[in-house]
Amino acid sequence: MSTINRQLRLKTRPEGAVRREDFDLVEAPLPEPGDGEALVRVQYLSMDPTNRVWLRDIPQYMPPVAVGEVMRAWGIGRVVASKSARFAVGDLVQGLLGWRDYALLRDERAHDYVKLPADPGLPLPTLLGACGPSGMTAYYGLTDIAPVQPGETLVVSAAAGSVGSIAGQIGKIHGARVVGIAGGADKCRHLVDELGFDVAVDYKADDWKQQLDRATPDGIQVNFENVGGEIMRAVLSRMSIGGRVALCGMIAQYNSEQRPADDFSVAIRKRLSIRGFLILDYKRGREAAQALGGWLREGKLKAEETVADGLENAPETLNRLFDGSHRGKLVLRVDPTA
Amino acid sequence: MSTINRQLRLKTRPEGAVRREDFDLVEAPLPEPGDGEALVRVQYLSMDPTNRVWLRDIPQYMPPVAVGEVMRAWGIGRVVASKSARFAVGDLVQGLLGWRDYALLRDERAHDYVKLPADPGLPLPTLLGACGPSGMTAYYGLTDIAPVQPGETLVVSAAAGSVGSIAGQIGKIHGARVVGIAGGADKCRHLVDELGFDVAVDYKADDWKQQLDRATPDGIQVNFENVGGEIMRAVLSRMSIGGRVALCGMIAQYNSEQRPADDFSVAIRKRLSIRGFLILDYKRGREAAQALGGWLREGKLKAEETVADGLENAPETLNRLFDGSHRGKLVLRVDPTA
Repeated sequence: MSTINRQLRLKTRPEGAVRREDFDLVEAPLPEPGDGEALVRVQYLSMDPTNRVWLRDIPQYMPPVAVGEVMRAWGIGRVVASKSARFAVGDLVQGLLGWRDYALLRDERAHDYVKLPADPGLPLPTLLGACGPSGMTAYYGLTDIAPVQPGETLVVSAAAGSVGSIAGQIGKIHGARVVGIAGGADKCRHLVDELGFDVAVDYKADDWKQQLDRATPDGIQVNFENVGGEIMRAVLSRMSIGGRVALCGMIAQYNSEQRPADDFSVAIRKRLSIRGFLILDYKRGREAAQALGGWLREGKLKAEETVADGLENAPETLNRLFDGSHRGKLVLRVDPTA
Repeated sequence: MSTINRQLRLKTRPEGAVRREDFDLVEAPLPEPGDGEALVRVQYLSMDPTNRVWLRDIPQYMPPVAVGEVMRAWGIGRVVASKSARFAVGDLVQGLLGWRDYALLRDERAHDYVKLPADPGLPLPTLLGACGPSGMTAYYGLTDIAPVQPGETLVVSAAAGSVGSIAGQIGKIHGARVVGIAGGADKCRHLVDELGFDVAVDYKADDWKQQLDRATPDGIQVNFENVGGEIMRAVLSRMSIGGRVALCGMIAQYNSEQRPADDFSVAIRKRLSIRGFLILDYKRGREAAQALGGWLREGKLKAEETVADGLENAPETLNRLFDGSHRGKLVLRVDPTA
């Protein structure tokens, strides 16, 4: 066993692509586990788009990695020395191990780590990928978040990536028509020929929007979104009424210092459900009118109106909605005898 | 009865606030109802923010009003002449009557109009407002779209408006703590003193964001959103994890020719559910791993990984997520013996 523990500590916050110089490669002494501690040899580290977000000093779902800290990362390791009540030598563990050769686990933080079966029956990279956090993300996105039904059209962006490639295959298992968006003819062929996607759209092709149009003649009922930006806009513009979006990632903006004015990514960070609606979908509903009428009669609800007069004044009256000069419902009396 | 039927027809598409010159005030002859037709005297027209959107040549949930057409608007009228099987003289009807003195209803479009009781028991403006489309919008927004629970904090924007003032009151009826955002001290006082809101935030005050912070010490669980833009961003930034947004309107952008890069309004137009999520919320779930493992063993799911080597190469490897040079799960092998 080595006597040093190499680790990559954040030196400067990257702008754009990360550079090796943004990190210090520190050779620290290998720690001895104390009571209630276990030493883990890192085997594999998961490379995830969210890692890039952790490097930015912006609001996010975890604190950003601080300058001087070991870079945070998910990984799998094996316990090589232990004075822990929870982890024995030989145990395989998965969790936030970080960019280093060895990590020290503490029993009081044991719930942050998942102990894997001694012989998990799958290659370790698969336990980080298809049968790990990436695959689980795809799974819950298409069951809990935006369930996809047989016959529906599901569009997956970043479809050749770790989450997208599983999401598309799960869509097929659920009987959906699956369209993947990926970059390059090779990846697109692979999605269709190897992974069973129905159609692939090559966003590096000039005609990618036309490809998307042709691939979704019946609109899009479910979008598993990993990219954001221009690709998400094109997908949303082809969604059917009442469509569902599982908003998993917005990789298009992770390397950029610019943030869009209306930033959908807040919905990921806060796990928000944002639902647009129009009253015209409810026009046959009597429930609301009965409830509202009842509350009005009981005095639980106050009705307020601002009444303007004269059909010829309709344009100016409409502007009052935007200048704040009315309160409650703004109506125009057209019939002076009303 | 008049012999002319005044009507406002769209002449030029407005930019910014609408101007009277954007419409032609046409004096057409009063039509005689033919067989299956009824003539309605317009009593009140509803002035709604969505009217402004109808004037713009952009994708929306109905076709935009065409140049030369009578301006579309919701209203209430009374039948004054009829050769209809559906509508008799004296009937009160509600529907898209348009900016005109009289409208001709056709029996084959009868389902587009709602016949009101002869004596509705409420003033006609209230039937367009609190007990009409505005109130119904508030009602379904807080029941079907983003149900609000007792004790939750509900924030309503444009809270002194036709929909917002009802939404806030419904929030109180449901036992929520209700914060309204409105423009000006008078409106804010009114919300609290007359309509029973718990707190009002004056967005015209310099410290409105601090007001919002103070008004929502436990975060925001439900947002009934009518405004969009800067106000919505401030509200979303204070939402609790798992919060729900009923996205009803985005009046902040209706008068503007600019559209934000990530435009939430598509969610209204298409009644989308956009739900952000993070796999870390599911870390105790075994269901996904079992399902994925089963599919992998049965060959229904293909796992793909791209494996890079060497802890020291972590930064460059992370960049591969963004340059498209990998497929499937990207992992870094840290232990060369793994």
